[in-house]
Amino acid sequence: MTSKALSDHLLGLLGPNGWLTKDIERYQADWLNRRSPQILGVARPATTEEVSAVLRLAHDANVPVTPQGGNTGLCMGSVPENAGAIILSLSRMRRIVSVDPQDFAVTVEAGVVLADLNGELENHGLMLPMHLGSEGSAQIGGLIATNAGGSHALRYGMMQDLVLGLEAVLPDGSIWNGNRSLLKDNAGYQLRRLFCGSEGTLGVVTKAVLRLYPKPRQRAAALIALEDFQAAVGCGAGLRREFGEFISALEFFTETGLDLVLKNISDLSFPLETRSPVYMLVELSSSSASVNLMAMLETALGEAYEQELILDGVIASNEAQRLRFWRLREEMPEGQRLEGAQIKHDIAVPPSRLDAFVSRTCAGLKGLMPGLRINLFGHLGDGNIHFNLSPPPGVVEFGDKGDGLSHFIYSQTTAAGGSIAAEHGLGRTKLQHADTLRSPVERRLMRLIKTAIDPKDVMNPGVIVRRNLDQE
Amino acid sequence: MTSKALSDHLLGLLGPNGWLTKDIERYQADWLNRRSPQILGVARPATTEEVSAVLRLAHDANVPVTPQGGNTGLCMGSVPENAGAIILSLSRMRRIVSVDPQDFAVTVEAGVVLADLNGELENHGLMLPMHLGSEGSAQIGGLIATNAGGSHALRYGMMQDLVLGLEAVLPDGSIWNGNRSLLKDNAGYQLRRLFCGSEGTLGVVTKAVLRLYPKPRQRAAALIALEDFQAAVGCGAGLRREFGEFISALEFFTETGLDLVLKNISDLSFPLETRSPVYMLVELSSSSASVNLMAMLETALGEAYEQELILDGVIASNEAQRLRFWRLREEMPEGQRLEGAQIKHDIAVPPSRLDAFVSRTCAGLKGLMPGLRINLFGHLGDGNIHFNLSPPPGVVEFGDKGDGLSHFIYSQTTAAGGSIAAEHGLGRTKLQHADTLRSPVERRLMRLIKTAIDPKDVMNPGVIVRRNLDQE
Repeated sequence: MTSKALSDHLLGLLGPNGWLTKDIERYQADWLNRRSPQILGVARPATTEEVSAVLRLAHDANVPVTPQGGNTGLCMGSVPENAGAIILSLSRMRRIVSVDPQDFAVTVEAGVVLADLNGELENHGLMLPMHLGSEGSAQIGGLIATNAGGSHALRYGMMQDLVLGLEAVLPDGSIWNGNRSLLKDNAGYQLRRLFCGSEGTLGVVTKAVLRLYPKPRQRAAALIALEDFQAAVGCGAGLRREFGEFISALEFFTETGLDLVLKNISDLSFPLETRSPVYMLVELSSSSASVNLMAMLETALGEAYEQELILDGVIASNEAQRLRFWRLREEMPEGQRLEGAQIKHDIAVPPSRLDAFVSRTCAGLKGLMPGLRINLFGHLGDGNIHFNLSPPPGVVEFGDKGDGLSHFIYSQTTAAGGSIAAEHGLGRTKLQHADTLRSPVERRLMRLIKTAIDPKDVMNPGVIVRRNLDQE
Repeated sequence: MTSKALSDHLLGLLGPNGWLTKDIERYQADWLNRRSPQILGVARPATTEEVSAVLRLAHDANVPVTPQGGNTGLCMGSVPENAGAIILSLSRMRRIVSVDPQDFAVTVEAGVVLADLNGELENHGLMLPMHLGSEGSAQIGGLIATNAGGSHALRYGMMQDLVLGLEAVLPDGSIWNGNRSLLKDNAGYQLRRLFCGSEGTLGVVTKAVLRLYPKPRQRAAALIALEDFQAAVGCGAGLRREFGEFISALEFFTETGLDLVLKNISDLSFPLETRSPVYMLVELSSSSASVNLMAMLETALGEAYEQELILDGVIASNEAQRLRFWRLREEMPEGQRLEGAQIKHDIAVPPSRLDAFVSRTCAGLKGLMPGLRINLFGHLGDGNIHFNLSPPPGVVEFGDKGDGLSHFIYSQTTAAGGSIAAEHGLGRTKLQHADTLRSPVERRLMRLIKTAIDPKDVMNPGVIVRRNLDQE
């Protein structure tokens, strides 16, 4: 089938609202404004059957397909590599199919936006405990495909831990209905987990049954100043032990990042008198009204201060202040973006190795580019660091040094037993780094899975693993 | 290579303590005393490298290998189908490699016994929150390979949710080192999750990094009498909502099972005055000493009683009584075993469908075999029912009706959106049922994965999925 014939066929199948070939710039450019080559068009199916029909046609015509959710990804997994490809947007499949309070479960179509879902669940006193900066745009299908993490992963797990069942359309258009509302389902391989984090390379997630939790009745948060990463990790582990099931977030940022957000975002204020190298944001929450979280936090911080484990600390006295604490942490990406050129990395190392890893890696980076500004922030509890770089003050770009800086960070991460893609996925931007660093056995295993399920390499090629070695 | 030559080779490689061909009956018979045909021998490697060498030799010689942990499985996944096969026991690889309190992680070899691990972790104030009847024999590798569930899965998840990293030896002997201590690791497909529940069909798990939690500082438990399953599910959902993060178990059993255990196990006693169709065991736990779990339980049960949601209830007043409550639930399998012939099923349905499912299925079963005794017990919170049958009083066996009864249960389960293998896996006993009931697409996906990773079908053939359709 010629491209023209395929396009006509898709128009006939999906109608003018379901097959777009004009005004599609917003689909072709990702969150960081990186663009795909000229594509064939954007398919916007309204049902699983339409998704199936699109994939079958593309498969037969050997035309690559990139599924796209809210298009908030940071690793170029949501815009195609190839000219002539199809973007398959799930944005019309945004139905909340059913909320099942007795099962603590909700069934949704893939295009439902996270914030919309939580808005609806609030009426039932329930929540999907996934919290990340893009929640106003990110769609459930994309969150599943990238196995999103976020700030509450320490307590509730990543997206894969919230998926009870899935429906997905496979590369050849066949529909896998694994949409069971079950915590326990060991009838064969964990296919529902395999699709989490597969970044559109094995098929398209069309529906999901997600695990819900009671919405907390109360929250308490504190902002803490610490001497260094060793103190932060030690203090964080102590708080996890002390607070157990109440810990819902253990976030961090540094003085470098604080300077950037206070400089670039005018309405932020900093509540501590003490400035220090590292800050930690700890949050407790409970579904029960009968515990006093704030008193628990006060006691623990008082003791930590007496024992000189922390330099300073303040507890949010009300909800507005708690949200202001969070803004300091969550405006980090925006504060740095406003500063100019930057390179973002999303890595994780075991918390116990964080201090040594950060010291060694920062020293090495500053050797590669003296004056480099290193803005570390993220999720202390799970060792997930957004390791972001700005050029030295007064310098507007990285020149030819960017790739070397990234590679240095990734090789240090790997040497520390870490992951070069903690919560954002590999996408296309990290594929080459991954292939330099991951073991041949690991790469082969991934390639075997990809080749078995997508032998024609039509689903989001160039992401996660190359089908053929000679393409690398 | 002849069988004799292979055996000699393995003896040379592993020594007389590592390659057994005599006195191997206990490896050849499973927990329910089902036996394999005559095997070549039992390999007991002491290191990952030895596992690798065994698999390479077997692979080259086309000899099937069945990995075996504590051999406590109930679905014949741990004893080989084929005469001349090798059993690979992990029992000599029982080293706890490291406990990392700051990371809330432990690295272990696959042969470590669950109870031994938790004994050691107790010294650190930590625990692996996996609780099941066989914990004194079950090994970590087997728990991972079967994706064990147990009583605390409602709160802490299944085994896959506790696996941070894995090392596995693939069918051809190559070693995959994915032994990273990371909650967040999205650098490609979730291989660590794929091996959970793969029942030895994709390779052998040799090491794992597992997620730990602080050991609870307190527990509180109640035993509750209920009118029927509808009341139990409604009450259970209400308690989950009320107690949120504190719920650590929501178990159930019925009057039929209570009769059996009180009759067959002499030292059990029942603490409630009310006898009722359904009983529920609810347990709360907390890492914090500053909450009053018992008072919370008292208030909630008092209100439920006032509102006539429950018929009766009693709270364990001390640790000894709490353990006695648990024994009533946990002696269910033994109480029924002592009664004589039985057929066990391990299924799950969404809790909201449990009442209708149980009514319909029990009515149908009694039509197939009047007087049949149906003993339901298990995990109410996740809808996981051990659906076990004893013949009518005075009848010693099921005759030719067993398979029909099982098939009826499994087809009703499937029709209710459930799983015919909730926490025990498919093994070999459920393969045929699975293939009758699962969708062709689901079976094909599993077959594609199996064939890609184990093209020679040497790893535990006959489990989960047949490599070739014509073998079915």
